[in-house]
Amino acid sequence: MGNDSEFDQVHGAEAVEAEAVADRRTFLQGAAASAAVGAAALALPSWARGGAAADDMAAITAEIEKRHEESVKRLQTWIRQPSIAAENREVNEGCELTMQMLRDAGFQSVTKVPSDGQPGIFATLDAGAPRTLGVYFMYDVKQVTPSEWSSPPWDAALVDKPGLGKVVVGRGAVNQKGPEATFLAALHAIRGSGRKIPVNLVLVAEGEEEIGSPHFAQIVRRPEVIAALKKTDGIFMPSASQDLDGSVEITLGAKGVVELELVSSGERWGRGPEHDIHSSEKARVDSPAWHLIHALNTLVSADGNDPAIPGFADKARPISAAEKEMIAVAAKRMDENLSKKAFGVKHWVHDVGWQESIEMLMSRPTVNIEGLVGGYTGPGGKTILPHRAVAKIDLRLVPDMTALEALAALKDHLAKQGFADVEVNMTGGYDPNSTSADSGIIKTEIKVYRNAGIDPIILPRSPGSWPGYVFTGEPLRLPAGHFGLGHGEGAHAPNEYYLIDSANPKVQGIDGATRSYVEFLYAMAA
Amino acid sequence: MGNDSEFDQVHGAEAVEAEAVADRRTFLQGAAASAAVGAAALALPSWARGGAAADDMAAITAEIEKRHEESVKRLQTWIRQPSIAAENREVNEGCELTMQMLRDAGFQSVTKVPSDGQPGIFATLDAGAPRTLGVYFMYDVKQVTPSEWSSPPWDAALVDKPGLGKVVVGRGAVNQKGPEATFLAALHAIRGSGRKIPVNLVLVAEGEEEIGSPHFAQIVRRPEVIAALKKTDGIFMPSASQDLDGSVEITLGAKGVVELELVSSGERWGRGPEHDIHSSEKARVDSPAWHLIHALNTLVSADGNDPAIPGFADKARPISAAEKEMIAVAAKRMDENLSKKAFGVKHWVHDVGWQESIEMLMSRPTVNIEGLVGGYTGPGGKTILPHRAVAKIDLRLVPDMTALEALAALKDHLAKQGFADVEVNMTGGYDPNSTSADSGIIKTEIKVYRNAGIDPIILPRSPGSWPGYVFTGEPLRLPAGHFGLGHGEGAHAPNEYYLIDSANPKVQGIDGATRSYVEFLYAMAA
Repeated sequence: MGNDSEFDQVHGAEAVEAEAVADRRTFLQGAAASAAVGAAALALPSWARGGAAADDMAAITAEIEKRHEESVKRLQTWIRQPSIAAENREVNEGCELTMQMLRDAGFQSVTKVPSDGQPGIFATLDAGAPRTLGVYFMYDVKQVTPSEWSSPPWDAALVDKPGLGKVVVGRGAVNQKGPEATFLAALHAIRGSGRKIPVNLVLVAEGEEEIGSPHFAQIVRRPEVIAALKKTDGIFMPSASQDLDGSVEITLGAKGVVELELVSSGERWGRGPEHDIHSSEKARVDSPAWHLIHALNTLVSADGNDPAIPGFADKARPISAAEKEMIAVAAKRMDENLSKKAFGVKHWVHDVGWQESIEMLMSRPTVNIEGLVGGYTGPGGKTILPHRAVAKIDLRLVPDMTALEALAALKDHLAKQGFADVEVNMTGGYDPNSTSADSGIIKTEIKVYRNAGIDPIILPRSPGSWPGYVFTGEPLRLPAGHFGLGHGEGAHAPNEYYLIDSANPKVQGIDGATRSYVEFLYAMAA
Repeated sequence: MGNDSEFDQVHGAEAVEAEAVADRRTFLQGAAASAAVGAAALALPSWARGGAAADDMAAITAEIEKRHEESVKRLQTWIRQPSIAAENREVNEGCELTMQMLRDAGFQSVTKVPSDGQPGIFATLDAGAPRTLGVYFMYDVKQVTPSEWSSPPWDAALVDKPGLGKVVVGRGAVNQKGPEATFLAALHAIRGSGRKIPVNLVLVAEGEEEIGSPHFAQIVRRPEVIAALKKTDGIFMPSASQDLDGSVEITLGAKGVVELELVSSGERWGRGPEHDIHSSEKARVDSPAWHLIHALNTLVSADGNDPAIPGFADKARPISAAEKEMIAVAAKRMDENLSKKAFGVKHWVHDVGWQESIEMLMSRPTVNIEGLVGGYTGPGGKTILPHRAVAKIDLRLVPDMTALEALAALKDHLAKQGFADVEVNMTGGYDPNSTSADSGIIKTEIKVYRNAGIDPIILPRSPGSWPGYVFTGEPLRLPAGHFGLGHGEGAHAPNEYYLIDSANPKVQGIDGATRSYVEFLYAMAA
């Protein structure tokens, strides 16, 4: 699935080839490198005050350090349990393990929530606090090709990475078990130091994030879950948000996505052959492959850049003056040349400049070809007239577009253009989501990052996708985002890692990241 | 390669999937089945007179029968020597074996002809006869996937096929070692009976037919080869021309073919990425896949059926009144429903009728998509923007089009349409060829078939391709065709076979096929 659990992991989505070359720092490009210039002038994280009393924080910090080994082992235990929804591999076991970890961390109520797919988890921690915070977990991980890994993906080996520090290597290390385990470590540290968790928690988890969260809405929209979430001030997903230089980005929502296959076949068309035939027959037999080409040709402008599906983007909200201003500020902190180099791109579409390219990335709905496959695909040629051809497409959506309306517009357009026979098979996707910069959770994130000496780059939207619409849309309308110091790379790629002990004081290892969650909880309580 | 060494093997070309369903009788469709009605009323092959004196023929026939085991063993020996140009596998060994077989059959001069690829063979048999006949051999065979075979492809096992008789199973059995070995058996039988070969022979052979004969012109156009071929009345390739019911088709030439890949890439285009990147970047990065779709869209009419490349078909000779009449006669002997059923086709292009569909098959140049491959081609989706996409295309050409002019027209068109960056990589192909129905070789073929009680279906052209242009074009301008009774199936497919002992008196086994070559040689001498 093309759903990316957060902005920083977008490049980690299925695009493994892309990932291998363009690491996460290059997604918006150069953010890391140019932010480094600013970061160099900043003090190291002070955590001076935050919302917590200084003595509380000293005790909790001591507890974090005391429990370091325990926290690392917890994460290793979790990584060693695969839980791959795409392969239906040990998913229920992964659910059970996650539930036990939640109980151990102090959630008093932890319930398995059945769905039409893999089960979800609904858990609450009542701290008797005035305020309540929502937490989103995923407990599944992406598939692996073990031969591509330098250490086995389920070993959770601790490895020294020169210049970086000690990391744990394994599938799920950063996406998303590392940050999630670190958040649990924060709960253990607070309680272990004799303090109360400063906010009540309502947690929902799913085991199908990596296949596009097809049943997540089912899980969240159960009456008891809705009722609990309605009491929260917002919901966040723990995330290792730091780049290699310590910089952090905050995105105020994400694009939606629809992944689908367009299939042209002789069987459905009623023209052309029902199986591959000799290519000389083209002289008198219709070609489903040409039919697909002609259908595709109607979907975008002649340069391939602007969607040409009537109604598709009618509800796309134009970029606002505030968003443009936000991007203008961010663009100055990012490096266009680094970005272009990372992508191997010489020109943006329409030869726009850097700032406009970011505006487009944030605000433009897209129709993209992920893949083409039909007939003979091996070396050289083969003289066939194929009976079937497929285009793999993704549509990216901005507010207030919806996945179902985008799909309907596409189907309607194809039918009107004479391609009603071309199958439109949606394989996954969901709506965009938006969270206001003025929401308490985002303001708190910014405050906590700044307290750590990090000035986050703030962007209107992630161009990637995550299923935040379940929280930000009806009926909850919650602010939703990602938070957390810490660092990792390789989501969906080989040698995924999460930083345990950092060699760079500007980048937090697991203890510093744990501290960031403690700070965040205290700040949310304030 | 898309070059099909003869009409009857067209369906046997690389289209293995097609082959598995549509056997050779269904290529022009129903030819076999409806011809069967006529054949039932005919006498069994009489060979009553032909050009040979009756006592000559009786002695030769006895010799054929006497040498039956020897002939079968020769074919088995040949099949057991693979010779696969596509894999550069034992090709020189195959050349040496073929040369020895030619010497054994009475060719006094047998020379290996070097080329920039695999070697050819130039051989002459001077019988002191007034007339000279050209012969074309190929000694290479198509690749195999042994696991798909019921008996190993290099075993040349003799197998009983219920209702058909005893066959030899092996790669090359029908394409083309079986018919070629049978022709050699005819030479052995004539000489073994104490008779002289009735015509002189000039033979050229190649070992790269299955990869598109890329160096065959080099071999044929050597001065000594040209000089020898110029003395011939025409050139033929031995071929197992009988369908399961004994019917035979004669085609007066073949379409030409160009196989090529169209490659759109960010590297060449100078727009879009140089490697696969995350699909969300489509909002600001050009897509080489869309670029390919738009380029493809300009190549054919909106229904995908008519080439739209200016200049491409300018030299296409329209179908003549004589050709139309030939097709009208043939169409009545062929079964449209059988044809449509074999292809899984409900309508011909433009909903034309049966006769017109055959006219189109014979006379229309085509632009066909063999395959599409780009980006992610596995199950489901993957959120990438691919840097490269490829369309595998074949062009079919009719006289007086040429492969090079077709290629040039395509390149010129793409450049003018703004797709100069799209690579056009020709992987193989050659010009069409034509032979007059009034040529001596065709008239003799018809006469010999009719002497055998078979009324051949005559068609203006094979919709498939073989490298006959080397003979029919400048400077030789020879008539060229295929001839031979006998039967086999499975060219380029698993379980290729050639009929040894026929259970059906209307279909000839190896001895009856040998006799057909004897008759043909005598008839050519007359």
